[in-house]
Amino acid sequence: MNEVKVGIIGASGYTGQELVRLLLQHPHAEINAVTSQSYTGKKFSEVFPSFTGALDLNFASNDRLAGIADECDLLFFALPHMLAAEAVDDTLLDKTKVIDLSADFRLKDPSQYDTWYQATHPRPAMLNKAVYGLPEWRRTEIASARLVANPGCYATCTILSLLPLTGAQLLHEPLIVDAKSGVSGAGRAADIATAFSECNESLKAYKVASHRHTPEIEQELSSFASTPLRLTFTPHLVPMNRGILVTAYCELDKSVALEDVFHIYDQKYANEPFVKVLPSATPETRWVKGSNSCQIGLTVDERTRRLIVVGVIDNLIKGASGQAVQNMNIMFGLPETTGLAQLAVLP
Amino acid sequence: MNEVKVGIIGASGYTGQELVRLLLQHPHAEINAVTSQSYTGKKFSEVFPSFTGALDLNFASNDRLAGIADECDLLFFALPHMLAAEAVDDTLLDKTKVIDLSADFRLKDPSQYDTWYQATHPRPAMLNKAVYGLPEWRRTEIASARLVANPGCYATCTILSLLPLTGAQLLHEPLIVDAKSGVSGAGRAADIATAFSECNESLKAYKVASHRHTPEIEQELSSFASTPLRLTFTPHLVPMNRGILVTAYCELDKSVALEDVFHIYDQKYANEPFVKVLPSATPETRWVKGSNSCQIGLTVDERTRRLIVVGVIDNLIKGASGQAVQNMNIMFGLPETTGLAQLAVLP
Amino acid sequence: MNEVKVGIIGASGYTGQELVRLLLQHPHAEINAVTSQSYTGKKFSEVFPSFTGALDLNFASNDRLAGIADECDLLFFALPHMLAAEAVDDTLLDKTKVIDLSADFRLKDPSQYDTWYQATHPRPAMLNKAVYGLPEWRRTEIASARLVANPGCYATCTILSLLPLTGAQLLHEPLIVDAKSGVSGAGRAADIATAFSECNESLKAYKVASHRHTPEIEQELSSFASTPLRLTFTPHLVPMNRGILVTAYCELDKSVALEDVFHIYDQKYANEPFVKVLPSATPETRWVKGSNSCQIGLTVDERTRRLIVVGVIDNLIKGASGQAVQNMNIMFGLPETTGLAQLAVLP
Amino acid sequence: MNEVKVGIIGASGYTGQELVRLLLQHPHAEINAVTSQSYTGKKFSEVFPSFTGALDLNFASNDRLAGIADECDLLFFALPHMLAAEAVDDTLLDKTKVIDLSADFRLKDPSQYDTWYQATHPRPAMLNKAVYGLPEWRRTEIASARLVANPGCYATCTILSLLPLTGAQLLHEPLIVDAKSGVSGAGRAADIATAFSECNESLKAYKVASHRHTPEIEQELSSFASTPLRLTFTPHLVPMNRGILVTAYCELDKSVALEDVFHIYDQKYANEPFVKVLPSATPETRWVKGSNSCQIGLTVDERTRRLIVVGVIDNLIKGASGQAVQNMNIMFGLPETTGLAQLAVLP
Repeated sequence: MNEVKVGIIGASGYTGQELVRLLLQHPHAEINAVTSQSYTGKKFSEVFPSFTGALDLNFASNDRLAGIADECDLLFFALPHMLAAEAVDDTLLDKTKVIDLSADFRLKDPSQYDTWYQATHPRPAMLNKAVYGLPEWRRTEIASARLVANPGCYATCTILSLLPLTGAQLLHEPLIVDAKSGVSGAGRAADIATAFSECNESLKAYKVASHRHTPEIEQELSSFASTPLRLTFTPHLVPMNRGILVTAYCELDKSVALEDVFHIYDQKYANEPFVKVLPSATPETRWVKGSNSCQIGLTVDERTRRLIVVGVIDNLIKGASGQAVQNMNIMFGLPETTGLAQLAVLP
Repeated sequence: MNEVKVGIIGASGYTGQELVRLLLQHPHAEINAVTSQSYTGKKFSEVFPSFTGALDLNFASNDRLAGIADECDLLFFALPHMLAAEAVDDTLLDKTKVIDLSADFRLKDPSQYDTWYQATHPRPAMLNKAVYGLPEWRRTEIASARLVANPGCYATCTILSLLPLTGAQLLHEPLIVDAKSGVSGAGRAADIATAFSECNESLKAYKVASHRHTPEIEQELSSFASTPLRLTFTPHLVPMNRGILVTAYCELDKSVALEDVFHIYDQKYANEPFVKVLPSATPETRWVKGSNSCQIGLTVDERTRRLIVVGVIDNLIKGASGQAVQNMNIMFGLPETTGLAQLAVLP
Repeated sequence: MNEVKVGIIGASGYTGQELVRLLLQHPHAEINAVTSQSYTGKKFSEVFPSFTGALDLNFASNDRLAGIADECDLLFFALPHMLAAEAVDDTLLDKTKVIDLSADFRLKDPSQYDTWYQATHPRPAMLNKAVYGLPEWRRTEIASARLVANPGCYATCTILSLLPLTGAQLLHEPLIVDAKSGVSGAGRAADIATAFSECNESLKAYKVASHRHTPEIEQELSSFASTPLRLTFTPHLVPMNRGILVTAYCELDKSVALEDVFHIYDQKYANEPFVKVLPSATPETRWVKGSNSCQIGLTVDERTRRLIVVGVIDNLIKGASGQAVQNMNIMFGLPETTGLAQLAVLP
Repeated sequence: MNEVKVGIIGASGYTGQELVRLLLQHPHAEINAVTSQSYTGKKFSEVFPSFTGALDLNFASNDRLAGIADECDLLFFALPHMLAAEAVDDTLLDKTKVIDLSADFRLKDPSQYDTWYQATHPRPAMLNKAVYGLPEWRRTEIASARLVANPGCYATCTILSLLPLTGAQLLHEPLIVDAKSGVSGAGRAADIATAFSECNESLKAYKVASHRHTPEIEQELSSFASTPLRLTFTPHLVPMNRGILVTAYCELDKSVALEDVFHIYDQKYANEPFVKVLPSATPETRWVKGSNSCQIGLTVDERTRRLIVVGVIDNLIKGASGQAVQNMNIMFGLPETTGLAQLAVLP
């Protein structure tokens, strides 16, 4: 089998580094280029010594994009929001496939970027060419896409946790999603808000009812439910490096029992390699840390007739770079689990 | 002013230790006895070297309770559930006042102990003699009580965060409380579930829809709302020592604006020394760590017309031992903030 | 007793915040001014919400120094290195006493600043007017000083751990000090090196054999030993907020037993309120977290005839702001423990 | 190539779990049995849900050892000390090869077990049949061994960090090793000493000058130096899950420069797949977390003519289970890196 030649545009953030790590261990990928504005010209393994002996590339400048595209079958973009939107056009897509890890191609309605990102999307016409890259729900579209919008970390966990309910017409408002993330979700940056002594031994809610993953969650839930759905979404910052846990609350129709709900989830996910519905446990983030898995637990509060779905992922893997590699496998006809068989690393 | 002579029955857990710490720094308290079954006869400061030079007492056996009661004006009980229920009777209360930090006297309806604690309460007649010791809401009753049931940590934070809504008839179902606690809330014990490497770098929900603080929260909300209220309560374990953060979700009547809600909370709490309603921030647990404060932040999700209340406390102080000292101050006619002026210790 | 009117020049770092916290709880101090360049004009308690309701001051600009000095009996400087050296001259000291928490007045030999700080000291003549503010060893000088150089955090812990040996002529080379600090020791700054996800779950040595606290340690050890002493000093960064632990290694003369060493330490420190020599335990940093204490443990490795001294402090209290308040108490004739009786907060 | 059929005797501790994880991802190993006393009969993946879908075995009882040995080419023992010493005899070794992760076969001199383990070794005659399994130094012996004693975690890191000096006769007393470990090194157990709230936000030295890895370090250093060597060894417990960092101090002969030392290390390790000598950085534990690597940094303190070697490993991988798999590869003629190519997982 031929190697997939890849470039990673923006390889110095956490999702970029994680792509490098996963792709170096992928049997059919070959990293041709890594870029970074801040580290241009520096050796990757000197900037990130955990890669000593594993990668012998220097960071290229982001300005070399066109040249890199010529040499690659696939580019991963891991840039701040609205930079990929500028860079990815039909000319680029003629040369190479693209998986974008930012939000730039996730929303179908361009006006949502004005509302949630305070930015006018520079290429709204591209939005309909992009496929929302959640393999468990859009596998076929991904297979034939040239541009995949890799979902947000919170969005991945929330959507995987709730979408099976649509099949049984059980997903309806009110919908409340209380989400918690480790600090790496905030990206790799010199920022007082994510300084060790400011985050450690503390917990906070942030962007209450205003987090940018809200519209992509609503877009996908509404699309599969075939009806507009709104939710209240509250993210929290947890003093740990990795992991997302989503606690989702849905009102349940009277006649539905826990075993019915479990059956619905099991039917959907039983053959999915990366989603496990736990029959009798509530998942912990450490059970998926370092792996591309999503684990889901289900509880019915009989007193209030409410379903509580708890979903966990590793925000940097299934919530970002692992899912991107999963999308790559699909786009290039590789077995979907190729290079992604890592088990959770615990403790 | 005379000293209040106190004994701490069960002083080797985290709430017991914290009582000792706070009472040693209290200008009108004198610790006469500390007990522990596991450490009987040992010097307190050798078991807990942070107290070196500060306390010159040995642990007495719990069996010495009657004798200790004779010498004390007040006993704090910090024992596992159902031990205080056995020990506290009218005879004891004739000798000494009691503040119990367990759940044994919190619920008015004895059948709730069967339901939630899988235990038959041994002295149901005492339940109506006990006052639920949440000073901001039951100050007068506490002042004249001989037996105070110190509220649970989650319950304190949840009730303080929601009760002001009752004054304006704004508290009604559906009610969802998503709560998060540091690990010290699980107590001081050799337990694999709270071992460092099992909790650190992980997050989990636990006792989903079945946590024992649920009935005391419902009891107090229902009491002040003058109507039965049920809620879904989901606790989570966060890898940090101290802190509780409660995110509570309530449907909001159409006409109510955020400023109305803020006004309601401000009216209730403006003069409370230990509750602060933040005008423009969402509280973080570190802002109250080491203090007896509760901080509350309010957000209205205009898209879904839902109120999101975020409350934080230090689970060992306002959620346990600090509140117990606050209750002591009230019961003995001391200014309520005596010995409790500590500001949060951060980072 | 009159209040000591104080100003805190540079109150937005961790040592500045900690000074504010301790001084607000000090019965004889009154905070007249807090300054900050980045937050000038902002309300202190809005920048640091843990002080809500406790301090009603806005940050002044550092440029207001002269005016602030007029209104204060004492200024604490908590600025980056070489800023106090510029600002503190005889004119200022005529108006007010000064305790400087930076390194600017700690070293007697101006050339050491060139060597270790890569900076020429702007006022070398002031160095001999300053007293090295380690109360347990320079109490009398501090009492009459107008300018006190508050020791470095590592230096405090190392010097307290080793100096008693000088009395018995037991301190001699080779001397190795392996030190470990929590992350707050690096200060409050937006810096990728102290970002949560870069420090958490990791440990590193840094500035190996080149840390700037080395010369002040050598200065004090040499001064009391009356002979030049050099040591190898290796600091490490530990994923916790607070705490310093120093492990010091000294060769031991053949005839000296552990009990002899213990006796030497005990004689020196038995009456010190803030230094405890543990008779039978090795101290942990949590035993002093939140307090102004230093705890010391002693071990003799009989196999190699080597003494191992383990000392712990809270780097922000005994290692910085608490010690500064201790110095203030001495300088103003207050009992040395005033405002510093806090016991360790654990867990 | 045939599969190596393995059994893991004691698979419920952290090293046992980690063996399972690594061997499941090993292309030429097949796990035939996992044992545990506490979980006998339970499904492995129900006890450890991170293995859901990955391993379909139940825990067998340790009593089934003989039967398991019949079916396996190799047994890994990961039991508490002195249990493998009882179980492993010539009869067993006739059936199967053994890699023991405890200390039971590491020391050549049986009397050392009395001194350091307070236990009389039950089969002293086996000690000389065992090979100390540090591949970088005893590769040939390991290849032909039937019984390999997998080194201790601290010992691995210390010996790898110091042994190259023996080649140039530069290793001599005084030798001081200040070592630091994450909490998983203490094993998986319900123990108050490793409870989250007792370890988190704290640092301590423990077993000062009395840790059991001391004699195996001295045995190996002395063996390669061809002269008896003693060291002072002080371990510390760091609030993180994984990682060991060793800071070793050696007096340096006058004429030796840093580049000489670097050359010595580089010559020894340049072709080692799992040991990297960093040319210009001091290693951090996160750079090897999740990998089988050891990274080493070198500094010369010119002021005191002392060499400071900093070495890091992941205590559960290169310090235990990864090294055991490396030994397995050698014992069965597989390429030494088989199944061990994982890069560090960070953050």
